[in-house]
Amino acid sequence: MTEQASASARRIEALTRHLAVTPLAVSTKVKVMAELAQERARASFPVRQMIHYVDGGVVKTKFREEMMQYLESYPELRTAPGDYDLPLAQRREQTLNKVRRLYQLFVENGTNIDKRNIMAELAGVYDLGVWVRNGVHFGLFVGAIMSQGDKEQQDEWMAPALMLEIFGSFAMTELGHGSHTRGFETTATFDHATDEFIIHTPTDTATKWWIGAAGETATHTVCFAQLMIDGESKGVQSFFVQLRDPQTHEPLPGVRIGDCGSKMGLHGVDNGWIQFDQVRVPRFNMLRRYAHVTREGEFVQTHKAQMAYAALIGTRGKIVTLSNGLLKKALTIAIRYCAVRRQGIQVNTKDPHDETKLIDYQSHQYRLMPLLAKAYAYHFQTSYIDALVEKFDKEGGDLSNDLLADIHGTMAGLKAFSTWDTLAGIEECRQCCGGNGYSAYNGLSALLADFSVIVTFEGDNTVMAQQTASYLIRSVEALKNGQKPAGSVQYLEKVSSNRTQKRWNVHSAADLANPQNLIDALELFAGKQVLVAADKHAKASVAHPNSQEAWNNCQVDLIEIARVHVFYTVALRFIQHVQELKSSPAHADLVAPLETLCLLYVLHEFDQSAAFFLKEGYMTSTQCELVRDHVLRCCTRVRADAVPLVDTFNLSDSVLNSSIGHADGNVYEHILDVATKKTGISPYFPTAIKQMLEGEQLE
Amino acid sequence: MTEQASASARRIEALTRHLAVTPLAVSTKVKVMAELAQERARASFPVRQMIHYVDGGVVKTKFREEMMQYLESYPELRTAPGDYDLPLAQRREQTLNKVRRLYQLFVENGTNIDKRNIMAELAGVYDLGVWVRNGVHFGLFVGAIMSQGDKEQQDEWMAPALMLEIFGSFAMTELGHGSHTRGFETTATFDHATDEFIIHTPTDTATKWWIGAAGETATHTVCFAQLMIDGESKGVQSFFVQLRDPQTHEPLPGVRIGDCGSKMGLHGVDNGWIQFDQVRVPRFNMLRRYAHVTREGEFVQTHKAQMAYAALIGTRGKIVTLSNGLLKKALTIAIRYCAVRRQGIQVNTKDPHDETKLIDYQSHQYRLMPLLAKAYAYHFQTSYIDALVEKFDKEGGDLSNDLLADIHGTMAGLKAFSTWDTLAGIEECRQCCGGNGYSAYNGLSALLADFSVIVTFEGDNTVMAQQTASYLIRSVEALKNGQKPAGSVQYLEKVSSNRTQKRWNVHSAADLANPQNLIDALELFAGKQVLVAADKHAKASVAHPNSQEAWNNCQVDLIEIARVHVFYTVALRFIQHVQELKSSPAHADLVAPLETLCLLYVLHEFDQSAAFFLKEGYMTSTQCELVRDHVLRCCTRVRADAVPLVDTFNLSDSVLNSSIGHADGNVYEHILDVATKKTGISPYFPTAIKQMLEGEQLE
Repeated sequence: MTEQASASARRIEALTRHLAVTPLAVSTKVKVMAELAQERARASFPVRQMIHYVDGGVVKTKFREEMMQYLESYPELRTAPGDYDLPLAQRREQTLNKVRRLYQLFVENGTNIDKRNIMAELAGVYDLGVWVRNGVHFGLFVGAIMSQGDKEQQDEWMAPALMLEIFGSFAMTELGHGSHTRGFETTATFDHATDEFIIHTPTDTATKWWIGAAGETATHTVCFAQLMIDGESKGVQSFFVQLRDPQTHEPLPGVRIGDCGSKMGLHGVDNGWIQFDQVRVPRFNMLRRYAHVTREGEFVQTHKAQMAYAALIGTRGKIVTLSNGLLKKALTIAIRYCAVRRQGIQVNTKDPHDETKLIDYQSHQYRLMPLLAKAYAYHFQTSYIDALVEKFDKEGGDLSNDLLADIHGTMAGLKAFSTWDTLAGIEECRQCCGGNGYSAYNGLSALLADFSVIVTFEGDNTVMAQQTASYLIRSVEALKNGQKPAGSVQYLEKVSSNRTQKRWNVHSAADLANPQNLIDALELFAGKQVLVAADKHAKASVAHPNSQEAWNNCQVDLIEIARVHVFYTVALRFIQHVQELKSSPAHADLVAPLETLCLLYVLHEFDQSAAFFLKEGYMTSTQCELVRDHVLRCCTRVRADAVPLVDTFNLSDSVLNSSIGHADGNVYEHILDVATKKTGISPYFPTAIKQMLEGEQLE
Repeated sequence: MTEQASASARRIEALTRHLAVTPLAVSTKVKVMAELAQERARASFPVRQMIHYVDGGVVKTKFREEMMQYLESYPELRTAPGDYDLPLAQRREQTLNKVRRLYQLFVENGTNIDKRNIMAELAGVYDLGVWVRNGVHFGLFVGAIMSQGDKEQQDEWMAPALMLEIFGSFAMTELGHGSHTRGFETTATFDHATDEFIIHTPTDTATKWWIGAAGETATHTVCFAQLMIDGESKGVQSFFVQLRDPQTHEPLPGVRIGDCGSKMGLHGVDNGWIQFDQVRVPRFNMLRRYAHVTREGEFVQTHKAQMAYAALIGTRGKIVTLSNGLLKKALTIAIRYCAVRRQGIQVNTKDPHDETKLIDYQSHQYRLMPLLAKAYAYHFQTSYIDALVEKFDKEGGDLSNDLLADIHGTMAGLKAFSTWDTLAGIEECRQCCGGNGYSAYNGLSALLADFSVIVTFEGDNTVMAQQTASYLIRSVEALKNGQKPAGSVQYLEKVSSNRTQKRWNVHSAADLANPQNLIDALELFAGKQVLVAADKHAKASVAHPNSQEAWNNCQVDLIEIARVHVFYTVALRFIQHVQELKSSPAHADLVAPLETLCLLYVLHEFDQSAAFFLKEGYMTSTQCELVRDHVLRCCTRVRADAVPLVDTFNLSDSVLNSSIGHADGNVYEHILDVATKKTGISPYFPTAIKQMLEGEQLE
């Protein structure tokens, strides 16, 4: 090694002989920033007007922009590329402080419900960890006290919870048991002698598991347990249980509690586990709006515990809206980058910056533009539902039960397929950014990792999809029993009575512009598949006397009809929306781009599902080819407005927190800003690298 | 707060009054471990025999098991759940020490090439970071010296490189330029006066970017730069450049170097960036096997620099093999967990452990079994290529150029689609594990994050797919010029001369067992689509005089024909393999499970691509339904052997490093082993949580 070292020293000397300091790495900033400016200059529509339209009015845009201002005004809220480097504990502390600051802002700005809703939604788009951590305490814990506790319990617990003097969690899932609550093993045994419940974890699989806030923050929990009285189970009830001493944060006696450790994403959230060793709580602590236990140990059910449709629609609606926001975030990053990044085919070989923009490749357009259409399609669907829930909240239940049941029936599936689409969409966006899609600072990889939980969260998507399938099967059964289907499933009647066309009335590209042709195909698409699946299911029910076995035998088809029904609902809403827009002269400039997006959304699915239409004999091969060609044509048209269409999402640089997604398009400088700070000798040079270079062998 | 505190103190006292210590969390270990044992007891084939068959013989199995033994014998190599918690610097140090230990083992065991190949492949399946970090020095850096350096240069640099006295990197990609090497901006200017090259980074986009090992480890690099002589570019050449002083690790004068920072995955790998400020190297340092510069500054090209087919096939083949290994790893984890985990439908409501196994749900089978079939299909394809490359290496080029060109033409696409399939497959496996799919300790989320780079790496998949498309288009052109297609594209002649059947010869499930029926459909499937795309491309070439524009106009179709061709190749190999197996009496017990996997692989694609067959009029709706039904039937059959089929992959617990994937199936204990160590007061309790609970507001 010494010879090598001195040779190396000579080499260094030789190499540095003529060294002259010259300016390094001239920036291509001006050239790069011109890319997005040019894209914007070519916009076919007034972006500001589109923003107001999409937001639902100037006032809502103002609220959104105020919220984004907050995110830049407070040091706890400000984002930076360094966030992606933070070690776990610091990341979690940062997230908690974000939650605290946002809560203070909520309280200060609390009177306007629109504003609060917008703040909550944008908080999630900005940082999913904040959304989850906030949701555990205020949504699940406080929500459980409000919905399942009685007046006296609320009087006792709400004030400290809202003052954050106690921090709550929601101990539902167990290590061996997820959403199937009947399988829960944790017990709450009534002790006649002391008038208490004994909360206990009888086996390892009964460990409360994945409980948000239990890892590090929570002082209390609402714990789900089998209520046992005199050796008999009275079903799963929920109990208010203290976990830690708020002053020392030591677990209370009998409480074993800890963190679930590293996760795929959501590093800012402290999911934890809890084991109870005969922990006693007063009888008062069983949440008793729907049932209670008397001093004598009698179990009294006062109402049937059932979440109202509106509440479920509200929660799932929030996930769908958030999911839509995150897809918009991913698309903003990817489309801006792909409109700046040049790669591959070099038109003028003299200029190294004269390669083709990624977004000008047909395959990139084919990957990104249908996703952009999807983001708009889901946007209009979520706006519709939000407005409906709002109306319900304000007018106090002035919606028919049928309509609520219908929305509820679709909502579970909408949660499933919109979150699946978003997850796949974020990954597509990431891949479209090539090598720089692998950096943490682009924001996409963290978004993907954080969002990945949502397909399981609040009910696994497979289970959610089956809830919609179940609604559809029940609708078919009702139809067979002579009931007229209402709401979104009206197509069932039309298709079952053979009132649909036999052949698609499309003979040229121009016919695709006629919305009736799209609606006809949509009705057949959804109606026929639902009816066929219902028929299969009915036959399976005869063959398998066990109804769950019969269901499982058709499960793949049942999940597919949920998907198709959700697609039908979203597509129909989008088509109707565009038609309404056409009759509004004030919005004339917005029609063309939205109409193209709508057409792309619908035709892309028709192309993917061409086999169905061909099997039905509804479309010919020629029509299928027409659809496919038109998908590519729509992609090109959408591409022309792609940057203005993501600018319409109006997400600030702080919300995006992406080196490649800034509004200014100055991607290379932003990338280097982070990287050029990461210099210096490696921390493991002395312990490993130097040893290796000195030829030292491992023992 | 004081009132609240004393109330809380009273509550704690009350709660703990009757506390009695009782045993906590009884383990369900015995019950849980019985699950996999039962699955194994039902295996329809002898697993050990299948392992030898799949490995390619008893000796290779022995080598694999020896390698897995090494991984458990050395402290640096041993895996543990804690690996997923390591902070960046420790993770990287750990990875480097793994590379060092494995290299020592390679040297000690180096004589047998089969063994070395197996060690290299398994090292990647075990830890992708190790594979990449090893590959940067030994594959790219040493490989460049060997393939592009002349004898004298090899004599100078190979010994220290192989002794690890210098550690290399491969400075190819630039911040603004990926695989399109002609766009590179870094310059190497010949200085007549000093007989040196001046390596320089003229702009920010010329920064060498994503350079493996540059972040923290490398002392040297092979740098790609535009060779400039007297103001004129002589094209991109590569230069041996020292970056850091091996003794102090300080960057040499003129070298600005640092780390690219946090990434989506591959946390153990130090990707870095380099900027050169007029760094001088002797004229000797230009790698000069194919070209050199004389003392007088004359550029002399001695050979056309072109990587041999065999080398390219070898490198891409390694990625495909590795990718297959990682899909097997993901499937092993997911299928074992889903065969243990019970969730949902409760058959006997008394027993909380009597829910349905995840793997018994039809939708889970539909998600996992076709993936398992894919893993086997790709396995046989990679084994075939490995054997071919081996033969080529041993017999020194005894393969026809046509055959090599054909394999090369398919290999680029195989890299693209096998890695895309693997990436999607890992994510599917992760989702199938529900909530526990989100824990870092399951190994799947790290696998997904690490593997995600591979779709970009060694040529973005979109680019790779187009290389295969280009081979197909050239083959069609050759056919039109009267040349008979050879190798994998022979179907082109058959289809273009209309010698295929007009209708599919399948009328019942039994007909699906006839391999000729599958091959007929496969030939039409690939042949027709390639011919149609070639036709479109020919028309586009007339319409667009710019050939790149013409190509881009058909890009989506061109990528699709690459996919279809790769599928055809893999499927045909699998079918032929099963047929050969049938004629081997010694393997009689292995035929049935492999035949079902093969059928599932082929029919699953036919079902997904039903639109093509319907448009062609080749299949009827009834035949398409038959295919679909048979896919579900095959899923059920494969499910019966699912655990033995992943046991066949024979990956040790150390390689899997997954709390839910252990061979013993004892998932809940393994999960709790990690989590129950994560207890104690949060590090940010004093700085944030306590403040919050005391009602302190943020400023």
